[in-house]
Amino acid sequence: MLTRDHLAALDRRDPLARFRDQFVLPEGVVYLVGNSLGALPRTVPQRVEEALLDHWGQDLIRAWNRRGWIELPLAVGEKIGRLIGARPGEVAVADSTSVNLFKLLAAALELRPERRVIVSEADNFPSDLYMIQGLVDLLGGGCELRLAAPGGLAEALADDVAVVSLSHVNYRTAALHDLPAVTAAVHARGALVLWDLAHSAGTLEIDLGGCGADLAVGCGYKFLSGGPGAPAFLYVAQRLQDRARQPLTGWFGHAAPFDFDPVYRPASGIARHLCGTPPVLSLVALDAALDLVLAADLGEVRAKSERLGDLFLELVAQECPDSGFSLVSPREAALRGSQVSLAHAHGYAIMQALIARGVIGDFRAPDVLRFGLAPLYLRYVDLWQAVQALRQVMAEEEWRAPAHRRRGVVT
Amino acid sequence: MLTRDHLAALDRRDPLARFRDQFVLPEGVVYLVGNSLGALPRTVPQRVEEALLDHWGQDLIRAWNRRGWIELPLAVGEKIGRLIGARPGEVAVADSTSVNLFKLLAAALELRPERRVIVSEADNFPSDLYMIQGLVDLLGGGCELRLAAPGGLAEALADDVAVVSLSHVNYRTAALHDLPAVTAAVHARGALVLWDLAHSAGTLEIDLGGCGADLAVGCGYKFLSGGPGAPAFLYVAQRLQDRARQPLTGWFGHAAPFDFDPVYRPASGIARHLCGTPPVLSLVALDAALDLVLAADLGEVRAKSERLGDLFLELVAQECPDSGFSLVSPREAALRGSQVSLAHAHGYAIMQALIARGVIGDFRAPDVLRFGLAPLYLRYVDLWQAVQALRQVMAEEEWRAPAHRRRGVVT
Repeated sequence: MLTRDHLAALDRRDPLARFRDQFVLPEGVVYLVGNSLGALPRTVPQRVEEALLDHWGQDLIRAWNRRGWIELPLAVGEKIGRLIGARPGEVAVADSTSVNLFKLLAAALELRPERRVIVSEADNFPSDLYMIQGLVDLLGGGCELRLAAPGGLAEALADDVAVVSLSHVNYRTAALHDLPAVTAAVHARGALVLWDLAHSAGTLEIDLGGCGADLAVGCGYKFLSGGPGAPAFLYVAQRLQDRARQPLTGWFGHAAPFDFDPVYRPASGIARHLCGTPPVLSLVALDAALDLVLAADLGEVRAKSERLGDLFLELVAQECPDSGFSLVSPREAALRGSQVSLAHAHGYAIMQALIARGVIGDFRAPDVLRFGLAPLYLRYVDLWQAVQALRQVMAEEEWRAPAHRRRGVVT
Repeated sequence: MLTRDHLAALDRRDPLARFRDQFVLPEGVVYLVGNSLGALPRTVPQRVEEALLDHWGQDLIRAWNRRGWIELPLAVGEKIGRLIGARPGEVAVADSTSVNLFKLLAAALELRPERRVIVSEADNFPSDLYMIQGLVDLLGGGCELRLAAPGGLAEALADDVAVVSLSHVNYRTAALHDLPAVTAAVHARGALVLWDLAHSAGTLEIDLGGCGADLAVGCGYKFLSGGPGAPAFLYVAQRLQDRARQPLTGWFGHAAPFDFDPVYRPASGIARHLCGTPPVLSLVALDAALDLVLAADLGEVRAKSERLGDLFLELVAQECPDSGFSLVSPREAALRGSQVSLAHAHGYAIMQALIARGVIGDFRAPDVLRFGLAPLYLRYVDLWQAVQALRQVMAEEEWRAPAHRRRGVVT
């Protein structure tokens, strides 16, 4: 039988406990949406204010050089590279995850000119599927999106496949792909693999280099806490960089952007995957957030993440038996990202009632309650508070209140 | 003979004089690069801090609805629309100017499926040319970029032209296209026109609706003062919106992004031209800046801009005769954007010497000195200070100093 004291004891022994105070978190709230928008690191406001008042305000245009704005896309990329097993020069920060996916999918198709198929999964993050659809429609000429059936990736991997585009962690179920094994299987069929690390970067050790992954993209605003709509990242393995060309050939990807040459000439290395002028204020926020994320040991982060998930499920079973929840996520922690998802026929209203009690998770149609577990600022006792709230919502049927059942915009 | 007193008198009568105090400007500096990075509006740091501490920090994920983050791309677009003669629902803020250009060029090619040529000019902003080159290379199939010779747009407009992509104001020379006349000429040949308003929005009255323009893009960080790398905007005329489709089909452009439907379905109206999650912090800064820009009368802004340019040229002729400068910009103010450009064989070193004296302009290879004239914060007496500095640089040949002649990164 789990008790609050048991959880409090885990907090006292938690090697990551010191990180919580480095984030701004509203009093009384249990925040379980770090998988969608990471909490605000305390260092971010000061760094942004400095960029505004001292750099923009006082140095104006000169800040591009004096304050290193011009180097931010690659410098911040280096920091992210340390989280995902990239070597220096393999990661850049630019644009959004969706735009970066488009760039690298187009690059992959060009790297496999005899092949015209992009493979993905029907339950991949929808925006990833949309971007593939947009590229396929634009290119025509037999270019095609093939959706692998659940568990059917092997069958989908015919000789016409140029690139396989998968999310490392499923946004809805938290199911974790075996990144090294899938990468090897894709390579065995002569295709490239493009990993979307949006829901995994910063929560577990990823070794893109070690497993020979080709391409990756990811998001700055989830577990990396870079702020709402923070710029995204992209990874291109060094061995592909001379040949990988992407079609959004803006001036920041030019070999000499300030020569104002009328003809595009790609920069060498990862810089050719930049496009327009980067949003400096958002980049500075992400940069500051990464300094905090990088101060944690990823092994400790993963261990706590797994434990948080296991304990949450154990607590729900203990406190809310026979409440009609079913588990959407893999039961085994090693197969999950840093999130657990439950299904319930009244999922939407239950989540609204939970939020009214200060326990903020989110809901995905038709019936999934998602609980993100950000190990840097979530305490073990927060799980107790969250599940006690859930118990009350279910026991007192609070979710039947009309205000909670009204479908509005997703929170 | 112009004197400092004459200029000071103009400042006293300037209906826009009250705006200068609304910007942060370093003491003693004359800032003539508002055409590249607009100065910091005083309201921006507070608005960004509020977005950080109150909205992100306290509301976390709920701020997307509670604080209207989700509406920012279109709400900020509406504000820009008022500057460029758009109707409500014709402008959105998203991505970078380069990415938006790619989207709308692809949309234009689809709107004219029998035509495969994109026309532009060799001295268009290089990143615009690069994006066209990237799209043309990606599409293949006879898709082509045709560069009109200077003054030779009419000859380039054959029946195979789908879209003409031009900058309203030339970034190097400040030459201003006759937007209504060119739009009419392009339409007469059955093509669409896509205007890049990066160097004109906010400096003169633009009536995209009145002259029937089809498509436009522009930049948030030049005369709009939205901050370094601020998000860009795009315009699609209402009459084209049902048919205009762009290929970067990310979830923010979906008809129902939070349904997480695996199949892309474009939103109606301008929202389908959004792609990924918008960078909220940078958007908030742009939003605050626009409130300031919109408080000025664009007729007064344009009148001051023309006068600043005329006076600057008059002062250079008076104070620096026989110094070897030639005029790159049109002499007639009505034909110029809010900038004057001079050429000089030692242009780079001269600009470095000027900057050392606190007069910040910029340089474009091989020999062009650019002086941006932002009417909201540039005083007439600043022109006096700038040209006195130029006089001293030339009279004392300060540009011969080794430190000024060393070519480094562009400031």
